[in-house]
Amino acid sequence: MSPLPTVLDVGRVAGVSRQTVSNVLNSPELVRPATREKVEAAIAELGYRPHASARRLRTQKSSTLGIRLDPMTNGISGSLLDRFLHALTEQADRRGLRVMLFTATDPDDEIRQFARLRDGADVDGFVLTATFHEDPRTEWLIEHDVPFVTFGRPWGIDDMNDPRHLWVDVDGHSGLRDATRHLLASGAENVAYLGWPSPSGTGDDRRRGWREAMEARGVLSAAQLDALQAETIDDVQGARDAIRSLIATGVRIDAVACASDSLALGVLLEVGPTIAVVGYDNTPVAGAIGLSSIEQPLDEVAAGALDLLLGDGGRGIVGWTSSSADTRHRLVTPHLVPRERTAIAGAAG
Amino acid sequence: MSPLPTVLDVGRVAGVSRQTVSNVLNSPELVRPATREKVEAAIAELGYRPHASARRLRTQKSSTLGIRLDPMTNGISGSLLDRFLHALTEQADRRGLRVMLFTATDPDDEIRQFARLRDGADVDGFVLTATFHEDPRTEWLIEHDVPFVTFGRPWGIDDMNDPRHLWVDVDGHSGLRDATRHLLASGAENVAYLGWPSPSGTGDDRRRGWREAMEARGVLSAAQLDALQAETIDDVQGARDAIRSLIATGVRIDAVACASDSLALGVLLEVGPTIAVVGYDNTPVAGAIGLSSIEQPLDEVAAGALDLLLGDGGRGIVGWTSSSADTRHRLVTPHLVPRERTAIAGAAG
Repeated sequence: MSPLPTVLDVGRVAGVSRQTVSNVLNSPELVRPATREKVEAAIAELGYRPHASARRLRTQKSSTLGIRLDPMTNGISGSLLDRFLHALTEQADRRGLRVMLFTATDPDDEIRQFARLRDGADVDGFVLTATFHEDPRTEWLIEHDVPFVTFGRPWGIDDMNDPRHLWVDVDGHSGLRDATRHLLASGAENVAYLGWPSPSGTGDDRRRGWREAMEARGVLSAAQLDALQAETIDDVQGARDAIRSLIATGVRIDAVACASDSLALGVLLEVGPTIAVVGYDNTPVAGAIGLSSIEQPLDEVAAGALDLLLGDGGRGIVGWTSSSADTRHRLVTPHLVPRERTAIAGAAG
Repeated sequence: MSPLPTVLDVGRVAGVSRQTVSNVLNSPELVRPATREKVEAAIAELGYRPHASARRLRTQKSSTLGIRLDPMTNGISGSLLDRFLHALTEQADRRGLRVMLFTATDPDDEIRQFARLRDGADVDGFVLTATFHEDPRTEWLIEHDVPFVTFGRPWGIDDMNDPRHLWVDVDGHSGLRDATRHLLASGAENVAYLGWPSPSGTGDDRRRGWREAMEARGVLSAAQLDALQAETIDDVQGARDAIRSLIATGVRIDAVACASDSLALGVLLEVGPTIAVVGYDNTPVAGAIGLSSIEQPLDEVAAGALDLLLGDGGRGIVGWTSSSADTRHRLVTPHLVPRERTAIAGAAG
């Protein structure tokens, strides 16, 4: 659609990768002078303008945002993205924008959908969820100057502050730290952590929150903390197995901070009433069974995503590299919803 | 947008209501000959063509359907419409259609949104949920020849078979009948029913399913069945109060069939392990706590809705009144998901 040169074109002419072009633009100190000169020559030759605003919604042809909707799941935590969609649609409506849904079978298929929706002028930009390090979708959107914002950090060491990648996320580190502090404050000493296998950007971030709170307490050694960790995929049965194995090691457990409500429910089904549990996402299941949980403020996430997308953080032609980061990235703080657990009598249903 | 005369125009010229025009077209035997002649004269004068296909998606300007998304709720049953949205988006995608979301504060606001989206050619038609008798939204869509289909029956005695109102619904009567039969088959004799206050199209339909199964069993008298019914708004606490009051009457209760999982959860929280409970909607909460529940086949509902909308049940100019009803209305049968109830130990969270 656009005949304007992209980062990819610059890389091709200079004979370097997109990442190197990106480094020249964002962190020139990382690039050898000879390479930098080649890239700068290619930028001049092609007339490339690394203008962040070009990827924003200034033109608003359709006043519509695209977002992928995955096949429905009956899972406990699956409702989080549905709740985000409600918040996004409401916040978009307040700004005169519509939300269009599409489906995709995999990242490549999603990229084909991006191209189709953009070429048809059906949408002005995209909201992405569930991003990951070296996500080909965000790379494609950046290369093709298509406006987008992600709910979720890129999680790469180099690209977390990439000004071309607008993102909003919830601070899971802070959430798990608060959950752990809550359990410590209520009298627990040995607070275990049940999370997801590493590496997981989101999961590792939440684990670090638990660990920070436990280290600040200063009672247990590093080795003792290592012995209080367990991991599993995000699944009720997996959580039951994982907590049973952890208990079988003989380690004393007073309470468990979990990376999700699914994991917390698995723990609840396995442990007796003396072990306190905190989940994450504050799902309807947590409300129903009286499980304390960390709530993600999705209205704030949705509002932040649209503010970034509609904003004008990058004003200058090349000057966007010096703009402050907070016009492009927003980390929202979650909060604990404490509850009294409810007893549900088991019986034939 | 369309200069074509509508049912409303015909009514104005003939000096009768829209309903009377509709009756002349659909059930002329209900209309006095003099009135019928007036309406037929107005139809001829205006050149009105009551062509059902005109309200279907033949033109496909945008290949997009609009659906209202309500503010997010954290309720237990609220996820049903989210699951329908997932199914609809998937089924639409298979047919080359997109789904566009919008919000509305009330039915009048929703009608303004219909007009705006139609005038902007943003959508070709609408999918509506939560319909009710004399719904002003469907009346507006019919009068303005805008294609639409509803998930939910119109519930009015006269308009259930209205060929201009395409609908798909789940047979709650059959669902509650099956739930009650399941409880009777597992040894319960006095199966109570906990539902919503009447009149409620959906609720009354479900209650009749319970009643039919109990009457077929033939053990309890009509008065005894009346004494086994309770009602409340769709709320966990309301259900706890309602079942407590029912128990306090001294009536024997072996099991409870409920109009929703929210009600079933309330019952579970109140009764001991000897009373079996079945819910409705098969929500994630039901899966989490081992509650048997009636599952609505939402893929089938979504596929049916799109088939009707894209179909061509009405071919003739006026002849659509004689087409068979099943090209316009589809009642989908739900099924029971039986489970073993899980005990959850109560404790400080």
